[in-house]
Amino acid sequence: MSETPDWLNNMAEIVGPKGFTRAAEDMQPWLTDWRGRYTGKAHALVSPASTAEVSAIVKIAHAHSVALVPQGGNSGMVGGATPDSKGQSVLLSLRRMNRIREISAGSQLTVCDAGVILQNLHAALDEHGQRFPLTLGGKGSATIGGLVSTNAGGTQVLRHGTMRALVAGLEAVLPDGSIYDGLAPLKKDNRGYDLKQLLVGGEGTLGIVTAATLKTVPALIDRCVAWAGVSSPQAAYKLFQFLNARESQSLEGFEIIPKSCLDAVLTHIPDTRAPLEPAAPWNVLIEIIRDQSDSIDPRELTESLLAKAMDKGLISDAAIAANESQAEAFWKIRDSISEAERADGPALQHDISVPVAQMADFITEAGAKIEARFPGTEVAAFGHMGDGNVHFHVKAPPGTSGPQDWMSQSAQVISPMVHDLVIASNGSISAEHGIGQTKRDELGRLSSDARMLTLRAIKTAIDPKNIMNPGKLVPLASNTPAS
Amino acid sequence: MSETPDWLNNMAEIVGPKGFTRAAEDMQPWLTDWRGRYTGKAHALVSPASTAEVSAIVKIAHAHSVALVPQGGNSGMVGGATPDSKGQSVLLSLRRMNRIREISAGSQLTVCDAGVILQNLHAALDEHGQRFPLTLGGKGSATIGGLVSTNAGGTQVLRHGTMRALVAGLEAVLPDGSIYDGLAPLKKDNRGYDLKQLLVGGEGTLGIVTAATLKTVPALIDRCVAWAGVSSPQAAYKLFQFLNARESQSLEGFEIIPKSCLDAVLTHIPDTRAPLEPAAPWNVLIEIIRDQSDSIDPRELTESLLAKAMDKGLISDAAIAANESQAEAFWKIRDSISEAERADGPALQHDISVPVAQMADFITEAGAKIEARFPGTEVAAFGHMGDGNVHFHVKAPPGTSGPQDWMSQSAQVISPMVHDLVIASNGSISAEHGIGQTKRDELGRLSSDARMLTLRAIKTAIDPKNIMNPGKLVPLASNTPAS
Repeated sequence: MSETPDWLNNMAEIVGPKGFTRAAEDMQPWLTDWRGRYTGKAHALVSPASTAEVSAIVKIAHAHSVALVPQGGNSGMVGGATPDSKGQSVLLSLRRMNRIREISAGSQLTVCDAGVILQNLHAALDEHGQRFPLTLGGKGSATIGGLVSTNAGGTQVLRHGTMRALVAGLEAVLPDGSIYDGLAPLKKDNRGYDLKQLLVGGEGTLGIVTAATLKTVPALIDRCVAWAGVSSPQAAYKLFQFLNARESQSLEGFEIIPKSCLDAVLTHIPDTRAPLEPAAPWNVLIEIIRDQSDSIDPRELTESLLAKAMDKGLISDAAIAANESQAEAFWKIRDSISEAERADGPALQHDISVPVAQMADFITEAGAKIEARFPGTEVAAFGHMGDGNVHFHVKAPPGTSGPQDWMSQSAQVISPMVHDLVIASNGSISAEHGIGQTKRDELGRLSSDARMLTLRAIKTAIDPKNIMNPGKLVPLASNTPAS
Repeated sequence: MSETPDWLNNMAEIVGPKGFTRAAEDMQPWLTDWRGRYTGKAHALVSPASTAEVSAIVKIAHAHSVALVPQGGNSGMVGGATPDSKGQSVLLSLRRMNRIREISAGSQLTVCDAGVILQNLHAALDEHGQRFPLTLGGKGSATIGGLVSTNAGGTQVLRHGTMRALVAGLEAVLPDGSIYDGLAPLKKDNRGYDLKQLLVGGEGTLGIVTAATLKTVPALIDRCVAWAGVSSPQAAYKLFQFLNARESQSLEGFEIIPKSCLDAVLTHIPDTRAPLEPAAPWNVLIEIIRDQSDSIDPRELTESLLAKAMDKGLISDAAIAANESQAEAFWKIRDSISEAERADGPALQHDISVPVAQMADFITEAGAKIEARFPGTEVAAFGHMGDGNVHFHVKAPPGTSGPQDWMSQSAQVISPMVHDLVIASNGSISAEHGIGQTKRDELGRLSSDARMLTLRAIKTAIDPKNIMNPGKLVPLASNTPAS
C-alpha cells in the first residue's frame, strides 16, 4: 500500500475508523461491478455517516482535485459505480447513511438517506400501510441514492413512472462541497431550472445524492395476476391499449414474453410450468391491483376484462392465477428469463426504448433485420411493453464455441446495429440501466451535436474540475476510453 | 426609425414581409406585458413560421450577439416576455407557428407547434374525444410554447400535474441555432441529463421551444361540482385528505376560498349568489369528474363522499350543483376573485407554495404575522390548496388614499416579509407564475449559494453570450436591475 497522502488522512479523520479503509480485502468486493465486467482501483473506500461528512469529504476532494466515485449497493448494470484502473480516485460509499428520516402516511411522503436499501424501505413502509411503488431484481442491495442517480425503472413504471416521477425532493452535495437542500416536497415550484431533475439520472456526475423525499402510495389490498396468449407483439399492443383505456388506474403490470423465453425458463428453471397449453407464440403477464378499499375486486375486474378481450379476439387464451402462490409462479417465469437465457447460451443484451406505439413493429422488424444480417442468431425481446421498453437480446447461433469470444466480437458489430435501428426509430439506447461506462462511447456516437454539446456544457459548468464520477455518462473530449 | 442593420435585413429576408415589422403601431401591443407593469423597446418584431426559420434567426442573433426575447401570447404574469428599455433586442414571436402537427387519440399524444393557442388545442382535441388537462384564465391567448417555458399550472394540477408532467417530448432551438429534436415520446430514456426538464420552466433563457409532444387524457363524460363550508384552513386540509385518500383519481379540483373573498365577489361581480346560507368562514370548491364510461357517476360519488364528510364533522354544510349551469356559477365565484378584489381596493399579490401538509398553518400563521406587522391590512389566501399553492394577497387598509403609492411602497416592505415567511416554511416564492423580471432580484436574495451558483453555471454554460431572454429569471452579476 502506498503512503497515505495528507488529504486522505484528513478524509479518514472526518469519517473515523468505521468509515475508512485502504485494506485490499475490504475494498475488493466494491471494486468490481456486479456483472463482473469492470474492475477498478481506488486510493481508499470512504464511507461517511452523514450529509455533513459527505460535504466535508467533497470539499477536500475539490481542493485537491481528487476524483470521487459514489457507490450505493453496487448493483448497477453499466459499470457506473466502478472506478477506473488508475487508482487515483476515492470510492465513496453511501451505505452507512441508511436512516429513514421520516415516514408520513398522511402526506404519502417519506424522507430517507441515500444509503437506505430498497427492500428495507419497502418493509418499513408496509408497517405504515404505505408502499413505494418501484421494485427490481436488486432490491436487496440497491440503495435509494443509486436508484435516484440512475433514474431506476422496473415493472411498475407503467402506472407509477420511473424514479423521476417518485422523487418529491432531493438533498445533494455539489462538486464544491456545498449542500443543496431541496428536500421540501413542493408540488409547485417555478424558481427556474429544476436542479433535482439534473441529479435524477445524473449518475453521480454532477453531485452526490445524500437524501430524498419520496412519494408513496397506499399499500396493496390485493392483486390479480393473469397470463394471456396472443399471436404477435402487435396483438399484445392492442391488448395493452384495450386494458389501459379501461383500467389505467389499476393496471400495474403488462409484460410481454415470447414463446422462446418461456421455453428457456421451463427448460432451465426448476419448479416452473407453462401457464397455458398449448403455449401461444407471444405471452402477456398482466397484474391488476386494488389499493383503495371501495374499488372493485381485482379478480372480478380481470375476469371481466379478459372475457371481453377474448370476445374481441384480442387474446387466444388466458389463465388467471387462482391464488397468491400461483401469482408468484407466473411472476417467477418473467423474473427468471435472464437466468434461463444464461443457461441456454450466450446472448447480447440491449436495454432499449422506442415510442410505445412503435414498439410492436420495432420488435418484429428490427428482430428480422438482425437475424438476417447475422445468420443463426435469434432475437428475444421481452419486458415492459406498456412503457415502450424491452430487453432486446440477441442469442448466439446454437453450438457457438467460445461464448466469451462470440460475446466480445458481437458486441462490436451486433450491438451497434441494434442501436442504429433504435435511433432510426427515435428511441433510446438506454431505457432504464443508464450509460455508465458501458454505453458512454455509443452515446457519443449516436447523439446529435445539440444534445452532446449541451450534456458537456452542463457537466463542465457544474463540475469544472471533473471530480464527480469522471469517465461516466458524458463522453468528454478528455475521457480515456472505458477499459 | 433607425437605419436597419445588415443582420436585421437578413432576419427580415428569412421570415418574409408577413413575419417582420419595425412599425411602432404593429409592435406596440407586444412591448408591454399584459398586467401593464413593464414596457420595453425592440429593434423589430420577428415572427418565424417554422422551426427552420427560428433556427436561422437564432444563428444570426448568435453571430451578432443580439438578444432575443421570445414571446407567445404575451399573457405571462412576471414580465418574462417583455424586452428591456434599451431597444437592443429582437422580439421573437412564435405566434405564427400555430399548427397542430398530429393528434393521436390511441396513444393519447398530441404534437403541436409552440404558437398553438391553448383554447384552440382544447377545441381540436375535443373532436378526437381527448382533453389536454391544463387550463387557466389566459387560455384564449396563452400559447403552448409559453406554457411549457413557464411550466404553467392552473386548477387541474391536483390530478394531472403542471406542464412538466404533461410534456412527453420537446423540440427547441438552442442558443447557437442548432435544433434539439426531443419530440419522440419516450416513457423511459436514461441517456443522461434530461434537457427537456431544463427547457420546461426555463422561461426562454436556455433556448426557444418550437414544438412539444403533449400527453392527453380522455374527454370528460361528466363532472360534479360542489361547494362545502368549513371552519378553517386546517379543516379544509382534513377534508382534502379525506377526499384524496378515497378518490384521488376523480378529484380534479379542490380550491379554498375565505369568506372575505366570497363577499368581495358577491359585492362586485354581477349575477353571483352565495352557494350556502349562512356563509361559512372558509369554503371549498370541489370538482369530481368521470372520464371512463364504466366508472361511478360523479354526482352519486360526490353525494356519498360529502355525506360521509358531514358525518365525520369535516364540513359544516355543502351544496352540490344541480346542473352544469350551477356548476359554472360555482366556478365563476372562484374565477372572479381577482377581479372582485381589484374593485375592492389595492392588494399585493403573491404566488407562493409550501409543502401541502404545511399550507393550512402557513395561511393562519403568516397571515396573522403580516396583519400584526402592517396594521389595517387584511390577508386573503385562496386557491389550490391540494397543491400547497395559494394566492396570498395582502389588501391595503380600508380607505387607503393613493392606491398606486401604497402598492409601490408596500411592495418594498410587505412582499419581502411574505417571501421571508415562505422561505422559512421551505416554500417557493414562485409556485406557478415564474420569475421573469418581477421576482428575479428576490430570487437572488432568497436562494442559497448552492442553488444560485448552479443556476448561473447552467445559464452561462448553455447560453454563454447571454442572448436568450437576458435579464429574466437568473440574477447574473452583470444584470442591470429590472426597470
